[in-house]
Amino acid sequence: MTNIHHVAKEAGVSVATVSRVLNGQNSVTYKTKLKVEEAINKLNYEPSVLGRNLRNSESRILLILIPQISNPFYTEIIKGIEQTAISLHYNILLCETDSSPQRENIYFELVRNKMADGIISMDPAVNRETLLKLAEKHAIIQCSEYTPDSGIPYVTIDNEEAAYRAVNHLIQIGHRNIAMINSDETYLYAQQRRQGYQKALLKHDIPIRPEYVLHASELGFDNGQQAMKRILKLKDRPTAVFAVSDLLAIGALKEVNNQRLQVPEDMAIVGFDKIDFSNMTYPTLTTISQPMYKMGKIAASMLIDRIKGKQVESVILEHELVIRGSTAG
Amino acid sequence: MTNIHHVAKEAGVSVATVSRVLNGQNSVTYKTKLKVEEAINKLNYEPSVLGRNLRNSESRILLILIPQISNPFYTEIIKGIEQTAISLHYNILLCETDSSPQRENIYFELVRNKMADGIISMDPAVNRETLLKLAEKHAIIQCSEYTPDSGIPYVTIDNEEAAYRAVNHLIQIGHRNIAMINSDETYLYAQQRRQGYQKALLKHDIPIRPEYVLHASELGFDNGQQAMKRILKLKDRPTAVFAVSDLLAIGALKEVNNQRLQVPEDMAIVGFDKIDFSNMTYPTLTTISQPMYKMGKIAASMLIDRIKGKQVESVILEHELVIRGSTAG
Repeated sequence: MTNIHHVAKEAGVSVATVSRVLNGQNSVTYKTKLKVEEAINKLNYEPSVLGRNLRNSESRILLILIPQISNPFYTEIIKGIEQTAISLHYNILLCETDSSPQRENIYFELVRNKMADGIISMDPAVNRETLLKLAEKHAIIQCSEYTPDSGIPYVTIDNEEAAYRAVNHLIQIGHRNIAMINSDETYLYAQQRRQGYQKALLKHDIPIRPEYVLHASELGFDNGQQAMKRILKLKDRPTAVFAVSDLLAIGALKEVNNQRLQVPEDMAIVGFDKIDFSNMTYPTLTTISQPMYKMGKIAASMLIDRIKGKQVESVILEHELVIRGSTAG
Repeated sequence: MTNIHHVAKEAGVSVATVSRVLNGQNSVTYKTKLKVEEAINKLNYEPSVLGRNLRNSESRILLILIPQISNPFYTEIIKGIEQTAISLHYNILLCETDSSPQRENIYFELVRNKMADGIISMDPAVNRETLLKLAEKHAIIQCSEYTPDSGIPYVTIDNEEAAYRAVNHLIQIGHRNIAMINSDETYLYAQQRRQGYQKALLKHDIPIRPEYVLHASELGFDNGQQAMKRILKLKDRPTAVFAVSDLLAIGALKEVNNQRLQVPEDMAIVGFDKIDFSNMTYPTLTTISQPMYKMGKIAASMLIDRIKGKQVESVILEHELVIRGSTAG
């Protein structure tokens, strides 16, 4: 296929000059321009990406940045985003960043180059400096995880309060040795949920034991299962666990079942998110219900408002404690 | 934001003329070109999408079409695709089509306009005519679901053989009344798996009963649960079920548990795919293991070969029957 190098060679000019001609810059002499245009025609060269968005400067495409596509928490939010976006004639492209700045940057580039109109970022590991810089010129919304006081509008829940309620529930049904399976505490939600966990303990004069807080490197069944293995070996073995993700909680539950212990009698478990799976386990999982679908819908309409130049305010949505079999026998 | 209309107005020419200038077409007089360029500079207009891919005609972006992002079967394939794509310096964009031709067409447009180098389609409901047309000029691979004799290379498993093995297993452990929860039989995989189901029955002289084959409109827990409700009401109630997706099988299992019946004693269940969650249920799910990660890796390297102009051959991968608690008590 003909590329810009062939055109440059044919016209006897540099690639940069061809690029300038294609960009319509008038720093090129007419004579050079003519040579380049003749080369383009002769080689039947079609510059990439040209022609599509020339009628207006909108792409009608929104980018969604997610850290891990395999977490149903994100896929439920995406359903909400899609519902709103499509009803307003926008399309979405999903970008799994795997928390890699390099991959993120490729996606940011799509916005810088106007191939997408805006971004909803759900990645807690997003490079905040880059995101802030991009937000100066482009429409960006953060969903679930956010950057406080950054000026980037967000939609989220009150993570501290939600964790407080989860742990408070465990205390109220009689537990005092309560472990926590947390995520990476460089993430805001992980910090906030730990604060809620500690607040509930302190309120009931239960000492905080650092060894009761475990950290999972990723949010997967496996990570939850490994964490529960460690919990079951702890001195003063905890009788209850609060996990910051249903995936972790379900893996933890699996390990308790594997060791022929009973849930909730030997170990009560509370998860977080209320993904569909959480109702398919045995026993079913007590969890904090996040309004994921609604969060997605709101994020999409905030982003589209932002694209249209409107001012938008951040939103904090309600959550709910859903008590099921893993804490109520 | 300045758009092409503003430029046209400022230059006193039509939008089409501005577009021709931006495209470097030489059907525009120099005088007009100058006017347009002056307008572009004065208004500080940045034509969409220009500038990125000018150095060469590659976008290094691959599109992945998936019907439903919430099915872990697809997310596991995507992990494989990403692994290969990223190691070869390609990025991927995920497009959920929701089996809508309109949405599909937006994504096809990205390839037509060279914003993406190729497509891996996993959508069984993809518009085959459009896909075939697109494949004449662009790199396209089908993954899992495919179009026989179309010339579009694919990677898949032998669905008929896999279904045969699943049902044969149920027969060998003593079942004769075996229901099937199938998907929409307009999809090739659903046709092939039904053939495998019938082949196993016929081989053991078990009569085929049309009322034993149920169809789920989507692949979700809920659909599986609804199907099992109907199965449990059938005359000559089946003692075993083969579901064409783990999600359906897990929903079906949930319903058996809800009705206080025992799995596998009262109802044996076999799923399909071996998603991670199939090992988290109670009891764990017997299922057909598809090499999803490998399928993704192969699809990506086939696509990249195709983009580079190489000839590629379709691949049929091995599957495996994984016997677990839902059939072996």
